[in-house]
Amino acid sequence: EEVAKLLALKAQIKTEDATPQKFSLKTAKGTRDYNPQQMTLRNGVLEKIIAVFKRHGAECIDTPVFELKDVLTGKYGEDSKLIYDLKDQGGEILSLRYDLTVPLARYLAMNKINTLKRYHIAKVYRRDNPAMTRGRYREFYQCDFDIAGQYDPMVPDAECLKVVTEIMDSLEIGQYVLKINHRRLLDGMFEACGVPDDKFRPTCSTVDKLDKSPWEEVRTEMINEKGITPEAADRIGEYVRLNGGVELVDQLLKDEKLSKTKAAVEGLQGIKLLLEYCELFGIKNKILFDLSLARGLDYYTGVIYEAVLTQPIKIGNEEQTVGSIAGGGRYDNLVGMFDSKNKQVPCVGVSIGVERVFSVLEAKLAAGDISVRTNEIDVYVASAQKNFLEERMKICTDLWNAGIKTEQSYKKNPKMLTQLQHCEENGIPLAVVLGESELKRGVVKVRNIKTRQEDEVPRENLVQDLLARIAELNVKENGTA
Amino acid sequence: EEVAKLLALKAQIKTEDATPQKFSLKTAKGTRDYNPQQMTLRNGVLEKIIAVFKRHGAECIDTPVFELKDVLTGKYGEDSKLIYDLKDQGGEILSLRYDLTVPLARYLAMNKINTLKRYHIAKVYRRDNPAMTRGRYREFYQCDFDIAGQYDPMVPDAECLKVVTEIMDSLEIGQYVLKINHRRLLDGMFEACGVPDDKFRPTCSTVDKLDKSPWEEVRTEMINEKGITPEAADRIGEYVRLNGGVELVDQLLKDEKLSKTKAAVEGLQGIKLLLEYCELFGIKNKILFDLSLARGLDYYTGVIYEAVLTQPIKIGNEEQTVGSIAGGGRYDNLVGMFDSKNKQVPCVGVSIGVERVFSVLEAKLAAGDISVRTNEIDVYVASAQKNFLEERMKICTDLWNAGIKTEQSYKKNPKMLTQLQHCEENGIPLAVVLGESELKRGVVKVRNIKTRQEDEVPRENLVQDLLARIAELNVKENGTA
Repeated sequence: EEVAKLLALKAQIKTEDATPQKFSLKTAKGTRDYNPQQMTLRNGVLEKIIAVFKRHGAECIDTPVFELKDVLTGKYGEDSKLIYDLKDQGGEILSLRYDLTVPLARYLAMNKINTLKRYHIAKVYRRDNPAMTRGRYREFYQCDFDIAGQYDPMVPDAECLKVVTEIMDSLEIGQYVLKINHRRLLDGMFEACGVPDDKFRPTCSTVDKLDKSPWEEVRTEMINEKGITPEAADRIGEYVRLNGGVELVDQLLKDEKLSKTKAAVEGLQGIKLLLEYCELFGIKNKILFDLSLARGLDYYTGVIYEAVLTQPIKIGNEEQTVGSIAGGGRYDNLVGMFDSKNKQVPCVGVSIGVERVFSVLEAKLAAGDISVRTNEIDVYVASAQKNFLEERMKICTDLWNAGIKTEQSYKKNPKMLTQLQHCEENGIPLAVVLGESELKRGVVKVRNIKTRQEDEVPRENLVQDLLARIAELNVKENGTA
Repeated sequence: EEVAKLLALKAQIKTEDATPQKFSLKTAKGTRDYNPQQMTLRNGVLEKIIAVFKRHGAECIDTPVFELKDVLTGKYGEDSKLIYDLKDQGGEILSLRYDLTVPLARYLAMNKINTLKRYHIAKVYRRDNPAMTRGRYREFYQCDFDIAGQYDPMVPDAECLKVVTEIMDSLEIGQYVLKINHRRLLDGMFEACGVPDDKFRPTCSTVDKLDKSPWEEVRTEMINEKGITPEAADRIGEYVRLNGGVELVDQLLKDEKLSKTKAAVEGLQGIKLLLEYCELFGIKNKILFDLSLARGLDYYTGVIYEAVLTQPIKIGNEEQTVGSIAGGGRYDNLVGMFDSKNKQVPCVGVSIGVERVFSVLEAKLAAGDISVRTNEIDVYVASAQKNFLEERMKICTDLWNAGIKTEQSYKKNPKMLTQLQHCEENGIPLAVVLGESELKRGVVKVRNIKTRQEDEVPRENLVQDLLARIAELNVKENGTA
């Protein structure tokens, strides 16, 4: 028996040692790696967005990927179930951040900051049902711009809209409309339609589904799930089909029911002022006042908005409807939730839906509509014969030290064809080609990969010659030096 | 009694409702927010590092912040206890990434990639004892450059060293030495000194402490904790005090004990070849072959290296010893651990200790040795009198649309002094000042904040005038257009 035990033990040890470990070779559900092509697209998009943020004077902050769970509790309504929790870390209960807005509010309250114009680009985590083909992941980037501070009505709000238009224009992703509405108007409208106070927020969530569902479905949900009377629902239905410009605001200010509701009048006056500022910012033609816009999140207190593409995007031979690309609004009561004296810091901001943009660009890349270079190498140092590694290394050193983006093969004796193929595959424009006879004469060949033209250049002039060629290529490509 | 109960219940409910929620207003242990100043320093450092990575043709990738726990298991030896685990997510057991190397290996194996030169900058997580004043956090940035692929010996390894020197030079953080050693040489040395095979790795971990502890302590640990004989320890002690250049390699190749040990000879030959390549790359004067360098991680198989500052850094009136800024080495067997057929992809790489660099710069900032601008605004649009918000908005629009980084007050009637103070505090170089009398004449004032000189500029020429002034300021600051 003793022996059997030992044998069994031995067999067990052997199994553990000998078989290769069986790993689940995958990433966690709803997450993905970004390969170099995807990162190039991503970084290109973020660069454009950051340029707009900086043009408006935004500063950059970052917060930890996890927060104390308490910080997130009670901020997201029903969606709290989607929060990722960590295991107890020696008495600390932590959760992965769900968005960048609550961490901002915690940051402002914790550091007693009253004014801040900041952007924050980072990953957030939601244990949602992933729909990865449509760019919906459990780990995804958010890209937020917010203005915190006690200011005059609608001035920072209007700048947020201006920022959104500049980003949409810069991304060149298609025609869009910037829908705006106001939480006070929605509240006033619900009140005027006979919805009880405590059902404003649930009703608002239901109205939010109008961008995806027809009115009939929304109406049914209101009546059956939210307990709204059919009469109230029908009254809401009449309002939420309205959209327009300042003339609609004026019309609603005279509306029999709304004009008697304080909240509605406040909301309408806010929208009117915002539209005036939008005209001054030259973006009025992009704005649509739309009473069906509700936004899901609980914490909004004032203006809300959403940038929506008005046409499907062409990807290869197919068309894809993308919808909302950016959204945000005013949230004046969130920071106070973190302050022991409930001191408020009013905030307004916008979140750019960069994952949707990435997803469109990735689809275009896959369809061959666009191409990307994943490296920025200008010069490849190649050798036509064997035993030139040392000479290649010396030349690479000279080029690197002159700041030239340079690469070579890591093999001692790479094949000429392989080296040139590498240049073509990677879009490298120039190659220095070393050959025995040229080196004896103190020259090297410089080859233009596209035109295949080769020129002999004296070794001692090589750096200068390449710098001039690179500058010329950049002019051709960008139209500027 | 019933009444008392109800009253107690009522009191309880009241407490819950009325008192503001008591939040722990802090970040999780060992983590921190980055404020705009810190982010500006951070982004400046990363920009310089990324420029070097791109100069060498590295592509960028990203991976999820968490991995399946299995992926991380068995890769970090004793340090595995520092891994952050998430709660079970519906059957998935996830952990936060501990470094960027294991996710890279998983990425290569999963996607069957044989060659890749990539950089990856992201946060990693270690539940270590934080020493935040010395820049050691539980959440911190890693900044890695790695070359994967089957190439000729020491060619990519030497480029990693070249990359490190370019980064160290670019960061201008102080004089440094790049220590190198070889795991095969260490193995051979242990063998030659009489250390049993199964004690190579633990002995190696102990040698790794030589940068912080004197030899006597290390010797004691070897004997008492790792079970090495005093004789073997003393033999090791003689070797690990050696450092030098190629002459030391030649000396050791003739060493009676080492020359008979296959691993040691392999390691020494590798070091010799690496030193030759370093000479070709023009960095030989930065390199020190040092037998005491061991590196903690288990997975290294070949050359290992570490960039160490040779002098303390002056911060205010004090001096701070910083030590190691970058480290890395060759790990040829890690990718195979993820492949069911154990197919290997040899890798070599380096990790830049950016947190140490951030920490030095933050200390310099706090001591007033350096200053940073947290925004890039060039022009502030101010008004000298009341009721100019609309005019300011129009001018801001023109400037934003011309790509000029512009800001204004979000108040309707800000005070002149407050506006100018904002410019001075934020380093904004130019202000457009609106006044009643000027506007009537179709001009505005442009003020240089530093010199306080004001010029009248026709309203219709404003954009052109400002563009010219900004270009001039940039020339003055950078010496280039």
